[in-house]
Amino acid sequence: MSKPKVFEKPIGVKDYLPGAVAKLRHIERQVLACMQGWGYEQIMTPTMEYYDTVGVASSTSDQKLFKLLNNRGTTLVLRSDMTAPIARVVSSLLKQSDFPQRLSYHSNVFRAIEEEAGREAEFFQTGVELVGDSSAEADAEVVALAIASLKAAGVDRFKIAIGHVGFLNGLLEETLPGRVEAQEQLKGCLLGRDYVGYRQQLRELSLEEPVQRELEGILRLRGGQEICDQALQLSADATAQASIRHLCEIWDVLKAYGVSEYVLIDLTMIGDFSYYTGMTFEGYAADLGFPVVSGGRYDNLLAQFGRPAPATGFALKTTRVLELLGDNAENETVRTLVVYDAAGRTEALARAQELRAEGVNVVTERVNEWNGLSVDTDVQRPFAYKGVNYGALLPFTGKGMKGGSAR
Amino acid sequence: MSKPKVFEKPIGVKDYLPGAVAKLRHIERQVLACMQGWGYEQIMTPTMEYYDTVGVASSTSDQKLFKLLNNRGTTLVLRSDMTAPIARVVSSLLKQSDFPQRLSYHSNVFRAIEEEAGREAEFFQTGVELVGDSSAEADAEVVALAIASLKAAGVDRFKIAIGHVGFLNGLLEETLPGRVEAQEQLKGCLLGRDYVGYRQQLRELSLEEPVQRELEGILRLRGGQEICDQALQLSADATAQASIRHLCEIWDVLKAYGVSEYVLIDLTMIGDFSYYTGMTFEGYAADLGFPVVSGGRYDNLLAQFGRPAPATGFALKTTRVLELLGDNAENETVRTLVVYDAAGRTEALARAQELRAEGVNVVTERVNEWNGLSVDTDVQRPFAYKGVNYGALLPFTGKGMKGGSAR
Repeated sequence: MSKPKVFEKPIGVKDYLPGAVAKLRHIERQVLACMQGWGYEQIMTPTMEYYDTVGVASSTSDQKLFKLLNNRGTTLVLRSDMTAPIARVVSSLLKQSDFPQRLSYHSNVFRAIEEEAGREAEFFQTGVELVGDSSAEADAEVVALAIASLKAAGVDRFKIAIGHVGFLNGLLEETLPGRVEAQEQLKGCLLGRDYVGYRQQLRELSLEEPVQRELEGILRLRGGQEICDQALQLSADATAQASIRHLCEIWDVLKAYGVSEYVLIDLTMIGDFSYYTGMTFEGYAADLGFPVVSGGRYDNLLAQFGRPAPATGFALKTTRVLELLGDNAENETVRTLVVYDAAGRTEALARAQELRAEGVNVVTERVNEWNGLSVDTDVQRPFAYKGVNYGALLPFTGKGMKGGSAR
Repeated sequence: MSKPKVFEKPIGVKDYLPGAVAKLRHIERQVLACMQGWGYEQIMTPTMEYYDTVGVASSTSDQKLFKLLNNRGTTLVLRSDMTAPIARVVSSLLKQSDFPQRLSYHSNVFRAIEEEAGREAEFFQTGVELVGDSSAEADAEVVALAIASLKAAGVDRFKIAIGHVGFLNGLLEETLPGRVEAQEQLKGCLLGRDYVGYRQQLRELSLEEPVQRELEGILRLRGGQEICDQALQLSADATAQASIRHLCEIWDVLKAYGVSEYVLIDLTMIGDFSYYTGMTFEGYAADLGFPVVSGGRYDNLLAQFGRPAPATGFALKTTRVLELLGDNAENETVRTLVVYDAAGRTEALARAQELRAEGVNVVTERVNEWNGLSVDTDVQRPFAYKGVNYGALLPFTGKGMKGGSAR
């Protein structure tokens, strides 16, 4: 094990320089303002949580949790998502508050990863949780808000795929009753979007022909509203049917929101969190292979914290949105440089304070010698000095320094 | 070791509910905007750093660092301040950028603490680093910016005490040459503001009378500009003299900024970070026993990251400012409640979207039955519903629901 070099940071984590921070902060501000417009209030929770409570509930696999010990020898984790911590707060500090509760957050989360994957171990999410409402209206609200949030973040071209955990579970229990292992294998293929592997698994199960056809039929259940009708015909299982009817109702509400053009139904999708119990969705931006938003209904999580309640929500992958928008929209702040010598100091610093009060960004510098800067008393055009770009120069100098020429 | 209860969070960390988050965010925004006005650009660094680099450089005692292991068995720490990480960035990613560099941050930092102390293990700091400028102007700039930042945060009554590490070091080396242990004991008393203990130590050292008087004299070196003159007379040591002259110059610049009314000189102050090499300062708000801001010059830290450079900066203790301002300035957002039934849904959701675009905060709810809500079509006065306060009610309902009365 070699010692890290002095300039190194750990693998999988990032430094954000001023240009990137300005963009990330802009996205954060716009998205949180959008969520506030829908009545969601921001909360913040600690970076560290108990492993035995939030760690276990968070549905992040054990080897992906960052663990540490506190002074008392209790195992802590760095939060791997915000859904479980918010469930803890709703069940404790907010125990007296009525349902529904609308909460938003912007937060960094942590997942230990295989370094080869090149994925980040610390990244930002901006999201909401709508707790205490089991209706299709609630599910549609978070999908519509996810769409509004993506737009607020500056993402224009995207699609939201919605599915339902209950449909797949019902269909699999109908076709492969009690065969848990076979069900899990098929679900694993769908989770990994490995449709070839899914068909392979189906063949190896040597099912009767109608069953085989029904299970293969799932793969075609991706499209618009018509998919709901097709799905109702595919399976007679009660859970599957109820799930599809719920999904149809969500679709109707999304039409009322006027956002159904962004949505497609994808019944092969099961969501990557084990706590999802109903509708799940993922948002894909054009030209990007991984989701920029994901969410779904989790009606059993709150019970783990002692306050059973239905809930639904989503997280925008803020860091991915930042990558998506890239570094092109550079709008550097314009600064004014105030230079002065000993004689001009009081006047210069007073003027700098006035300008700042007016909203101007001002850098002050005392120049005993010229330091390579030639000044005129009336420079109002852009120039660079010591690697920084300025929009204007204001010199406050004694006689000896006047009369230089602007560069 | 008992298991934590499901609703518990680790000791020393906090949840922030919407009211507190709104205030914390307001302080963050105002202070960062103030820093931007002075030409400081925001950067962000990872929560986790290598123990062997930033951990060792950070001047937080080893037992106060939160440590964890990554996949490769390398020890990581949760950052305990932002000064060391920024020194790392200035020496790596920003290696090509000219000096001076003006950088700002708003960040959570972590310190493992004795639980009895009731201090927080995770808290927020908002600060700046001015790197590559060794002048008194630079020191005065960060002190003046600290004053402006406190005002921007909403803190009106405060005092900034400034001292100089070099003065004490020079004086102690002059009076107790080579007696490192005695010097450290005396410094320990001053760090803890234990002046009784300091006098006790002095007596136990059995010094000659003039030396004893000189060392006792330090305790009186607290006040305005006149302290500089007194200090120059107290010690003839070259380091002590140079330190005082630097401090006098800082004072002159602060007068030029027009902020000397907030400042007092306190030569008993040595700053709580071992990396300080020059001027140090602390800001105290009225009615609060602990500093709300602290900073100083650290000219040797950058060299540890391979790019030797002088630097000065400060951190505002954002979480303490929040405590200071308290929960009194409650200005809850006003929301509009849009209720609808099946017939009114499309119209209701469209209107909600219009209102949100106009900046109104809107919560929508489908009410199949009345759910205890009596509606009129023209309610524009405050009311409460399911524990939430609303400023206006907009119903979009079919015939069956009209004609209720406003509560």
